[in-house]
Amino acid sequence: MTLLAVGSIAFDDLETPAGIREHLLGGSATYFSLSASNFCPIQLVAVVGEDFGSAEEAVYLDHSINLDGVIRQPGNCFHWKGRYGTDLNEAHTIQTNLNVFADFVPKLPNHYRNSPYLFLGNIDPGLQLEVVNQMAVHPKWIALDTMNFWIDGSRSALEKTLKKIDILLINEAETKSLAKESNVLKAARTVASMGPGTVVVKRGEFGSLLVTRDICIPVPAIPMENVVDPTGAGDTFAGGFLGFLASQGNLEEASLRRAMLAGTVMASFTIENFGIEKIASVQKRDIQERLNHFSQILGLSGL
Amino acid sequence: MTLLAVGSIAFDDLETPAGIREHLLGGSATYFSLSASNFCPIQLVAVVGEDFGSAEEAVYLDHSINLDGVIRQPGNCFHWKGRYGTDLNEAHTIQTNLNVFADFVPKLPNHYRNSPYLFLGNIDPGLQLEVVNQMAVHPKWIALDTMNFWIDGSRSALEKTLKKIDILLINEAETKSLAKESNVLKAARTVASMGPGTVVVKRGEFGSLLVTRDICIPVPAIPMENVVDPTGAGDTFAGGFLGFLASQGNLEEASLRRAMLAGTVMASFTIENFGIEKIASVQKRDIQERLNHFSQILGLSGL
Repeated sequence: MTLLAVGSIAFDDLETPAGIREHLLGGSATYFSLSASNFCPIQLVAVVGEDFGSAEEAVYLDHSINLDGVIRQPGNCFHWKGRYGTDLNEAHTIQTNLNVFADFVPKLPNHYRNSPYLFLGNIDPGLQLEVVNQMAVHPKWIALDTMNFWIDGSRSALEKTLKKIDILLINEAETKSLAKESNVLKAARTVASMGPGTVVVKRGEFGSLLVTRDICIPVPAIPMENVVDPTGAGDTFAGGFLGFLASQGNLEEASLRRAMLAGTVMASFTIENFGIEKIASVQKRDIQERLNHFSQILGLSGL
Repeated sequence: MTLLAVGSIAFDDLETPAGIREHLLGGSATYFSLSASNFCPIQLVAVVGEDFGSAEEAVYLDHSINLDGVIRQPGNCFHWKGRYGTDLNEAHTIQTNLNVFADFVPKLPNHYRNSPYLFLGNIDPGLQLEVVNQMAVHPKWIALDTMNFWIDGSRSALEKTLKKIDILLINEAETKSLAKESNVLKAARTVASMGPGTVVVKRGEFGSLLVTRDICIPVPAIPMENVVDPTGAGDTFAGGFLGFLASQGNLEEASLRRAMLAGTVMASFTIENFGIEKIASVQKRDIQERLNHFSQILGLSGL
């Protein structure tokens, strides 16, 4: 039940109303894998630079995340500098340096090519398809993240890749943009019909919405008083959602619903502190406790 | 278990992406009472003009809404002209004519003054307090709606009125503005401590959030493919929420939670057609059917 994840490892400089932090370990693959590792074993494919040292490596190894697929290149890691104002739903990019990520071509180690579950983080849809083609056995499911940059600039490649996948995680504006439809439910159904079958719309502090041809599961976020830094919340949600699904081994409605709760709970930890500080230190009993709390405020029981 | 409601009766001209309609019966008291009348008997206090005829009156009487508290004045009804673009969450006011509503001073008929439940729609907070003082017996609970106009312009009067009430229904931006706090949960708790104890934050298509000192209940909206006109959705929500609570006779957590679902379901009907067209024609079995559907997509059962 190993989950193979492809994505970015980065250093971030962050400014939020709660403060300023520099050179924090981040990137979609980092948030995703730290979150998912609470539910299933993780194999990671990413690229790092010479500024990625043993202290950083230890963060993943402490979570038993396999790094055989992480290659090191001359230069520095992907670097993102961003700022959030009072509206924490909106990130303002101040600077992006792709660095070693600019020439990233994922290459799967041989012992990764039989993984039953595959998550393709937000990279060029052509490269995402390349990864699918490298698999020795077609995975039981493939999940994918993307963004407006590819929807606007590489639509036909993206559409081709979408036909190969089972689950798409995408934010609300991107769902509408991809479907060319302003109603979120219609948009998600349109996107589901483009290939993935299951679409999870991420709505930030308003929660998430899972849509297939037949079902629709809206889930609110957990209202939090203490929001320090929303960076990585979406990737952490994806990690909790897909990690939980991988641990279940099926895509039945009950599993999808519980996976949505797991993703929501993991995201709620991330935003409580800067960068990965909270998500890297959270314990299984904290997760179970918050899952119980969440079930209780939703009026659910016996989860 | 009669619910006494004070608010506005209006004629609206509406433009949405689905079309244009003129001279539709509307106003907060109309949406509220049509919705609430599905759950409990309603007494209405409002003012109408000479353009309010027997056809309009029949809409309320068909729902057994008592109109003894609706007074007629020379002139025309409150008139609102508004437009919605693709983002149906935002109404753009084109024109407002207060007409007879400008001099509205609610006066309760004697046989209204013992009502156990009172809803004060969005009018001057000083007048809202006047209504409370007209009650012969202090109601079991008093609920109130307000808006930015009063928060910004009549804060001290509003703060005085808030001390007298039990439940405040208010949208998200107004909650933050009233509390001077940008985190919605902190803001709602601050507002709850100003008097009402129970605060229901209305978040449009993202659902609603009930907050007291001790509990917090987030409820998503029902994802709808067919959204024609969002006018009155918030008032309809309030009607379903408070009508259901009045039918239960208590403010226990289980009742509050089910009331949130009732409000959400009623609002989902309103937006399916222009003005009150849908909410005025919906049947009890439609309501029960949608409540069942909503419970099912939330993963709840046995409601």
